[in-house]
Amino acid sequence: MAESSGSWRDSYKGMSSDNIKGLVLALSSSLFIGASFIVKKKGLKKAASTGTRAGVGGYSYLYEPLWWIGMTTMLLGEIANFAAYAFAPAILVTPLGAVSIIISAVLAHIILREKLHIFGILGCALCVVGSTTIVLHAPQEREIDSVIEVWNLATEPAFMFYASLVIGAAVFLIIRFVPQYGQTNVMVYIGICSLVGSLSVMSVKALGIALKLTFSGTNQLFYPQTWIFTLVVLTCVVTQLNYLNKALDTFNTAIVSPIYYVMFTSLTILASVIMFKDWDRQNGTQIVTEICGFVTILSGTFLLHRTKDMVEGSSVILPLRISKHINEEEGIPLRRQESLRSP
Amino acid sequence: MAESSGSWRDSYKGMSSDNIKGLVLALSSSLFIGASFIVKKKGLKKAASTGTRAGVGGYSYLYEPLWWIGMTTMLLGEIANFAAYAFAPAILVTPLGAVSIIISAVLAHIILREKLHIFGILGCALCVVGSTTIVLHAPQEREIDSVIEVWNLATEPAFMFYASLVIGAAVFLIIRFVPQYGQTNVMVYIGICSLVGSLSVMSVKALGIALKLTFSGTNQLFYPQTWIFTLVVLTCVVTQLNYLNKALDTFNTAIVSPIYYVMFTSLTILASVIMFKDWDRQNGTQIVTEICGFVTILSGTFLLHRTKDMVEGSSVILPLRISKHINEEEGIPLRRQESLRSP
Repeated sequence: MAESSGSWRDSYKGMSSDNIKGLVLALSSSLFIGASFIVKKKGLKKAASTGTRAGVGGYSYLYEPLWWIGMTTMLLGEIANFAAYAFAPAILVTPLGAVSIIISAVLAHIILREKLHIFGILGCALCVVGSTTIVLHAPQEREIDSVIEVWNLATEPAFMFYASLVIGAAVFLIIRFVPQYGQTNVMVYIGICSLVGSLSVMSVKALGIALKLTFSGTNQLFYPQTWIFTLVVLTCVVTQLNYLNKALDTFNTAIVSPIYYVMFTSLTILASVIMFKDWDRQNGTQIVTEICGFVTILSGTFLLHRTKDMVEGSSVILPLRISKHINEEEGIPLRRQESLRSP
Repeated sequence: MAESSGSWRDSYKGMSSDNIKGLVLALSSSLFIGASFIVKKKGLKKAASTGTRAGVGGYSYLYEPLWWIGMTTMLLGEIANFAAYAFAPAILVTPLGAVSIIISAVLAHIILREKLHIFGILGCALCVVGSTTIVLHAPQEREIDSVIEVWNLATEPAFMFYASLVIGAAVFLIIRFVPQYGQTNVMVYIGICSLVGSLSVMSVKALGIALKLTFSGTNQLFYPQTWIFTLVVLTCVVTQLNYLNKALDTFNTAIVSPIYYVMFTSLTILASVIMFKDWDRQNGTQIVTEICGFVTILSGTFLLHRTKDMVEGSSVILPLRISKHINEEEGIPLRRQESLRSP
């Protein structure tokens, strides 16, 4: 098997050191953010036991150390996420957001005794295999030596067209749809923050690259482009936060989360493919495999959110031990069984 | 993008013509077998409307043309499946069995009006992306010029050890476990037919290769090994059928199908990796990607079977349009939402 063990090392030389740094940052970001939900919730519960619940307007949680530890953990997670974009392509970093769902689902299962439904466990498994597939086949991060290069990528016709389409659509949604349908159809708010969110990530990535280069000795701060990207980051992130808060405040989290994850991640990958031309350096097999990995993560996320409130007994659970002599409507069998047995 | 369109062709030159033949045969086999369930069921329903139902001992379906068309379609499917093994590795052919579930689920949805639950649709999507991932990364079929080569592979220590382990375990299950637990624990029957099934597939593959070579001019029928493989095929398939029938007759299909699919496919892939050394010609990335594809198909199959009897309203379906002002227990949010909004 000597020949094959050499090939094991080949496959792992494949990931550039930047991609690996980006991966480690993205995973630790998910770890921090996933854990922060649980720590904050413990803090909220502790505060609620001594004062008025946050949900009904109480602020006693502000005196609760656990809650502040949770906030700090979350902040660390966001910083790690920001830095991850400076090292690895968005198509690798963004989908890994799903890992934070697994971490908080598993920690909630252990610490908060919020039992995971079997479909929830399936959802976690799908997020893991989907993320693994994307990580193994993500494009290498392109070498960028100055923020001017990023600026040139951002001002190419293709991305200019994408950006104007996104801004146009967002403005249209804000002016025409928010007043009429904002409160009744979740797609309006989520549409806006997903569209704008894809521009946030691109500008965050540009800013991250500028900071990374600056810290490694090639100062980018005297370029005006660095400050334009900073302005874009602030504008987009504020807009994104605003409409995301409206969505979470108006609709159930179990509705907002899966839809938002799907739209935000898809648009971010699209923006990255257009601006950074991720797929130009890949063949058909890798691109199709990445899409399969992404669909798998989407399905896992969907399952996790859709079954969060399903208790174990609410779906058809047939214990291994019952025998069949209950009259069973003939179901749709798998190959090689019903085909062998059915009359 | 010229450089990349060349790479699209590269990736598809990657699949050998034998692998493509095997893929086409495996997919058409799934098509036939998937469709045969629906045609047979239509035949059974038509027969039931004029005579005694098959489920309660009636045989009027034997005079029903539709039922015979269904049986013929199924037979064609099994032949195509047999032939597929002669062209492509088991790790490509076996998991594609899941495609027949999708086909029968979709046809049942359209023709028999048996509505697919949203999780069922998710299951179909997962089976498709999982199969795509495996097809894109399956190892190339090794060149085999005579049944003697297959015999040498089968009589190598590693596979001899596997085969004796399997036979020993099956005999042990039959003698010690069947009498006591056969009727109450589904794992006994399924364990036997999955173990023996993996040997069936290896011997079917050996026989298929012998027939393929014979039809292409190098007669293998005068080798005694060809007839030994034939004997092994018959013995294993009869044993497999016998215990599979017992399982289907004793336990609910919704229990038997997913477990059987998981155990049978996993053991078959393991046997193939040992006997035909599929993974010796692959690197770590391909092997891990195949396993991810396989886990994705398993999840899809599990979802399809688990939700076959779930009607749309039986799980928490939150329409897009309701607004949030129903008091909602704080769920586990996704990154960048609750972390932005929670107190």
